[in-house]
Amino acid sequence: MKKVLTLALSASFLIAGSLVQEAKDAGLVPIPSSKAELLKLIDNPKNHITDEKVNLGKKLYFDPRLSKSGFISCNSCHNLGEGGDDGLEAAVGHKWTVNPHHLNSPTVYNSVFNDKQFWDGRSPHLEDQAQGPIQAGPEMAATKEHVTDTINSIPAYVNEFKNAYGKSVDITFEKITDTIGLFERTLVTPSAFDDFMNGDKKALTKKQQDGLQTFIQVGCATCHNGVGIGGGMNAFNVTETYKHMNVGDFKGDANGMVRVPTLRNVTQTAPYFHNGKVATLKEAIIEMGRIQLGTKIDDKQAKSIETFLQALDGRKAAIDFPILPASTDKTPKPDLN
Amino acid sequence: MKKVLTLALSASFLIAGSLVQEAKDAGLVPIPSSKAELLKLIDNPKNHITDEKVNLGKKLYFDPRLSKSGFISCNSCHNLGEGGDDGLEAAVGHKWTVNPHHLNSPTVYNSVFNDKQFWDGRSPHLEDQAQGPIQAGPEMAATKEHVTDTINSIPAYVNEFKNAYGKSVDITFEKITDTIGLFERTLVTPSAFDDFMNGDKKALTKKQQDGLQTFIQVGCATCHNGVGIGGGMNAFNVTETYKHMNVGDFKGDANGMVRVPTLRNVTQTAPYFHNGKVATLKEAIIEMGRIQLGTKIDDKQAKSIETFLQALDGRKAAIDFPILPASTDKTPKPDLN
Repeated sequence: MKKVLTLALSASFLIAGSLVQEAKDAGLVPIPSSKAELLKLIDNPKNHITDEKVNLGKKLYFDPRLSKSGFISCNSCHNLGEGGDDGLEAAVGHKWTVNPHHLNSPTVYNSVFNDKQFWDGRSPHLEDQAQGPIQAGPEMAATKEHVTDTINSIPAYVNEFKNAYGKSVDITFEKITDTIGLFERTLVTPSAFDDFMNGDKKALTKKQQDGLQTFIQVGCATCHNGVGIGGGMNAFNVTETYKHMNVGDFKGDANGMVRVPTLRNVTQTAPYFHNGKVATLKEAIIEMGRIQLGTKIDDKQAKSIETFLQALDGRKAAIDFPILPASTDKTPKPDLN
Repeated sequence: MKKVLTLALSASFLIAGSLVQEAKDAGLVPIPSSKAELLKLIDNPKNHITDEKVNLGKKLYFDPRLSKSGFISCNSCHNLGEGGDDGLEAAVGHKWTVNPHHLNSPTVYNSVFNDKQFWDGRSPHLEDQAQGPIQAGPEMAATKEHVTDTINSIPAYVNEFKNAYGKSVDITFEKITDTIGLFERTLVTPSAFDDFMNGDKKALTKKQQDGLQTFIQVGCATCHNGVGIGGGMNAFNVTETYKHMNVGDFKGDANGMVRVPTLRNVTQTAPYFHNGKVATLKEAIIEMGRIQLGTKIDDKQAKSIETFLQALDGRKAAIDFPILPASTDKTPKPDLN
C-alpha cells in the first residue's frame, strides 16, 4: 500500500512538474518568491524604491485633495480594498462624468508588470501614467499648479518629501506623480499559481491544474502571458468582432492594438472588457475564445479555465490606511465645478 | 537655584491644578484614560462592542457597494484619513449632488460623544444616523433592498455576520447599519488636552494652558463642553445673525436648536459652520463670539483660543485598510443614474 501511494504521489509530482514546464513554455512567468528578485523586477532604476518614498506615495494615492474637487483620489477608481479598480462598467470622475470612451478602470494591482499603461498603451510606465488621470477633465480634473500648490502648502508633506528625496528636493508635479507611481510599483499580489510555478506542487488543486492546462491548450496564454499574465499589446477582434463593440468609440492605438489586461485577481475585477459590458467571467472567457482565438469554448472548458483563474487571486499586502496631514490656510480650496 | 526652580515648578503645578478644576467647573470632560471606563462610555448596551463586529463594521464603512452607484462609501464624506470629514463646504454625493441645504459633513471622529446626530439633531445615536446617508438621494442613494441584497450576495460577508452575531443572524438593513454605527463608536481620539485633564500637567504647553483659560473666560465652554467639547443642542444666532446665514436654508430643529460641533480635531475640519462658509479657524472663533456670546474676540484672544484648540488634535487609532470580499454574479450591479 505504502509503495503504491509513493508511486502515485511521484506520478502526480511528475505530472505537476511537466505542467510547470508546459506553462513556462507557454510564456507564463511567476512572480519571483525571492524578495530581492522581485525588487529588481518592480524597481524604478531612475528612482529607487525606499520605504520613505513608498509611504509618501501611499498618502498621495489616497489623498483626494490632489483632485480639483477635493473628493476624488487615485483610490476612488483604483480601490485597493476592491480589486484595485471600481467595479463600474466605465470610470466616473469629476462632476460625475462617465469616461467619454466608456472605458473601464483597469486594476492597479500588478500593473507594474504591464508593458505599457492605459487601454491603448499610450503610456510607457506607471510614473507617466500617474500624470494622466489627475489632470484629465472627466477624472480628477486638477491642474499641475493645483497639485503642487496643495502639496507645498502642507508642511508635513514638504517634510516627507525632504525625508524621501533630500533637503533640496523640488516638489514638482512630476516628483509627486513619480512618487505615486513608485507606490503603485509595490502593489504586487503573489498567488497560489506563483507558488506552484515556484516549486510548491501542492499549491494548486487538481482542478486548478486541469484548468491551467485547458487555459494553455485553448490558447489563452497566447496573449495572457509574462509575469502579468497579460500586460502586452495585442490585436483585438482577431477572428470575430466583440459583441459590445458599439459601446464607446474605443479602437485601440493607431495600429488597432489593445493592452491585454492582467488576469491576476480577475475574479475581483468584474465587469470585463475595455468597456465593461461583460458582467461575468464565464461570459468573458467564452467571448474571448470567439473573437480572439476563433474557438468555441464550451461550458466545461470555461468552467475549468475559471477554476484556474481563481488561483490567480493574490495575497495583498496589508495597508495601513494613511492619516493625511491637515490642510493649511494656504491650501487651494476644493472646487466642485 | 535648585530651590527656586523647585518652587517655580510647584507654582506651575498649582496653577495647572487649578486650571484643571476650572475646566471641570466649566463642564469640560476628558476622554477617560482607562480603557474600561472608555468602553463603558462608548459601548452600545443593546449591541455590545466586539472585535468581530467592529472589524466587520469597518469593512462596511469603507464599502462603496452600499451606495447605488457603487462609488460612494461612508468614508467618501467622512474620510478617516482626513479629519473624519471631506474638507468641502457642503457634502457632495450621488450624481455629484451638493447637499440641498448646503450642509457641511460633520466629522465622524468622536461623534459617539454627540448627544444627538445631524446638524438638526434629528437622530438619537450613530446606529440610527447610519441609516440616513445610505438612503438619502443626494448622498449614497441606495434602497434598503440594495444594501441587504448586496451583503447577502457575498458569502464572505454573510460568514462575517455569522461570526459576529451567531449563525441564525438575519442580515437586515438595520443589522448592517447597526454594525457600521458600532464601528463608528470606536473612533475616539484622545489628545494632549485629555492627558492634561487626566493628570499629566506637562501635556499642555504654557500657551495652550493660557488658551484653555481664554476659551473658558470668553465663554466658549458654555456650548462646547462635555466629553465631546461640543455635541449638545443649542440656540444659534443668539446675539447677532451669522454673516453667511443666507447660504442654504438651514434653520436648526423645530425650535431653532442646532447641534454644537465637537471641537476635537477642529484644526483638521475646515471649512467651518453648518454651511461651511467660514474658511479659517480664526474667523470661526471671532464669528462665534459675535453671534453666540455677544463678545468682540480680539486677534490676541482668537490666537490664544486657537492655540488651545490645537491641543484637541487627537491620536487616531491605526486602521488596516480593509480588503473587501469580492462581489458575486448575484451582487446588484452599480447604477450611476
